Amino acid sequence: MSEAFQVRADSPDGPAMTEPLETWMPRILQRTEQALDRYLPPKDMEPTVLHDGMRYATLGGGKRLRALLCHAAGELVDAEEAVLDGAASAVEMIHAYSLVHDDLPAMDNDLLRRGQPTVHVRYGEAMAILVGDGLQAQAFAAISELPASPSQKVALLKELASASSSLGMVGGQAIDLASVGHVLTRDQLEQMHRLKTGALLRASIFMGAHCGPAPVPASLHAALDDYQRAVGLAFQVVDDILDVTSDAATLGKTPGKDAQDNKPTYVALLGLDASRALAEELGKRARAALAPLGPRAGHLHDLADMVVHRIR
Amino acid sequence: MSEAFQVRADSPDGPAMTEPLETWMPRILQRTEQALDRYLPPKDMEPTVLHDGMRYATLGGGKRLRALLCHAAGELVDAEEAVLDGAASAVEMIHAYSLVHDDLPAMDNDLLRRGQPTVHVRYGEAMAILVGDGLQAQAFAAISELPASPSQKVALLKELASASSSLGMVGGQAIDLASVGHVLTRDQLEQMHRLKTGALLRASIFMGAHCGPAPVPASLHAALDDYQRAVGLAFQVVDDILDVTSDAATLGKTPGKDAQDNKPTYVALLGLDASRALAEELGKRARAALAPLGPRAGHLHDLADMVVHRIR
Repeated sequence: MSEAFQVRADSPDGPAMTEPLETWMPRILQRTEQALDRYLPPKDMEPTVLHDGMRYATLGGGKRLRALLCHAAGELVDAEEAVLDGAASAVEMIHAYSLVHDDLPAMDNDLLRRGQPTVHVRYGEAMAILVGDGLQAQAFAAISELPASPSQKVALLKELASASSSLGMVGGQAIDLASVGHVLTRDQLEQMHRLKTGALLRASIFMGAHCGPAPVPASLHAALDDYQRAVGLAFQVVDDILDVTSDAATLGKTPGKDAQDNKPTYVALLGLDASRALAEELGKRARAALAPLGPRAGHLHDLADMVVHRIR
Repeated sequence: MSEAFQVRADSPDGPAMTEPLETWMPRILQRTEQALDRYLPPKDMEPTVLHDGMRYATLGGGKRLRALLCHAAGELVDAEEAVLDGAASAVEMIHAYSLVHDDLPAMDNDLLRRGQPTVHVRYGEAMAILVGDGLQAQAFAAISELPASPSQKVALLKELASASSSLGMVGGQAIDLASVGHVLTRDQLEQMHRLKTGALLRASIFMGAHCGPAPVPASLHAALDDYQRAVGLAFQVVDDILDVTSDAATLGKTPGKDAQDNKPTYVALLGLDASRALAEELGKRARAALAPLGPRAGHLHDLADMVVHRIR
């Protein structure tokens, strides 16, 4: 985990933080792991193979960027960490299910994920479909169960369902599927990623804000919206860069797949140097969006740095 | 539709009804179709192929048993029909997604559903996976949007997420998958169906009850629980009977698949005559559970008859 996110805690243009990144990040990662363990059915509960697969797909790996964004946004509104744990678990379960289905033979046909065999390689294709389906339902079950008011739960539900829907993540995957072998314009590429990965990153941030005791003020909403747009796009640009510059051991998945599958990428469209410059520019834009929020946005600031400088 | 549900409106042992079945049923079916049309993204919205697939899988077919059960239970608690429309749409979307994924080559590999090519035959396997995923998210989006209080929405969310989860429908499918080629005891077969189809039928009924303005009273909860258990099991027993006695034209799907796939069924376990007797007995048990609820349970009473006497 620490390898993937090598960032300076004392980022030169960053504001002072409430809790140092060196303690905050491992603490939130540990909380998230424990919360996921609680919100997922235990592995000795029937049907045990399904539950084992759901836990294999979700626990013990991943950058947990969505959980970290959720907690960091929650700090801006004095959200209780127990509520944030539930929201972060829900969004990580949606992310995990999307990877399981994305890796299926009919989709990307990936054999390796987080350095381990993908779910369909380990459990078979039929069970992998059910693991994904069960994780999606479990994410919404987690929203219904977390310790918050009915109004908060409905705000979280709205955000997560919309981000996961055909107007969000699943819609982006459908566009991705249809785009293989086609030349996309930069606008089309951006629209695809805004849905495919951006919608859930955006939801992670807004769900964190909805975990606070009061409705999200318009000024905060506007700042977070600017932030999420820049971070979401930066995430994808860096993903495309890593696909051509990294190796399987560091990446935990097969690199070079996009070019091989003839998928449109930023590197293919802009070249490597311009893609790197774009990622830096987006990082700057994300940090600028946080300026009006003051020192409480410190962890969101760090997370923008991490997204731009991540090595896997 | 009317062919599938040939029942006497003047069922001899049934109580008087508020609205005659002959007008109530087509009215609710039409409301459900219109509500699904509203709660699903329009087909001219991007990505259009995905939305076309989601609408193909959901609209213009099916018995709508779950929507009817939801509305019939809602009548017991003076629920507003606009709220019931949203709940019924959500549960029908979950049902539709489960059929799309169930029909996939890696699962049951079915080519025909409701007399039409299955979604993967028409749109390809990858898109069918996304159609199912998108429908599940859209069901939860519908819950977030329907015109009810936050407390009602959370009650509906809890019911639907739990019924769709690995402890409900998806869990039943995993057990079904693992049971192919194995001999199940009657208890094991009942447990599988209680999850695979029973959980969502149960949710349809309880969601209808949650659409009322007040929490569901314990006595009503107990009666509905007895009812749903009998109706859910009757539904499956009749399914197994139809699989060996019906033809593709009537059934709208390929009959004889269960025997061919070496799946455990009630007919295989008990024989045809004993299965028919069991279905009748369960119908009686369902009607008996409604006795304390008086004439307002008339439509639930009719629906139990329909489940036992359906021909597809």
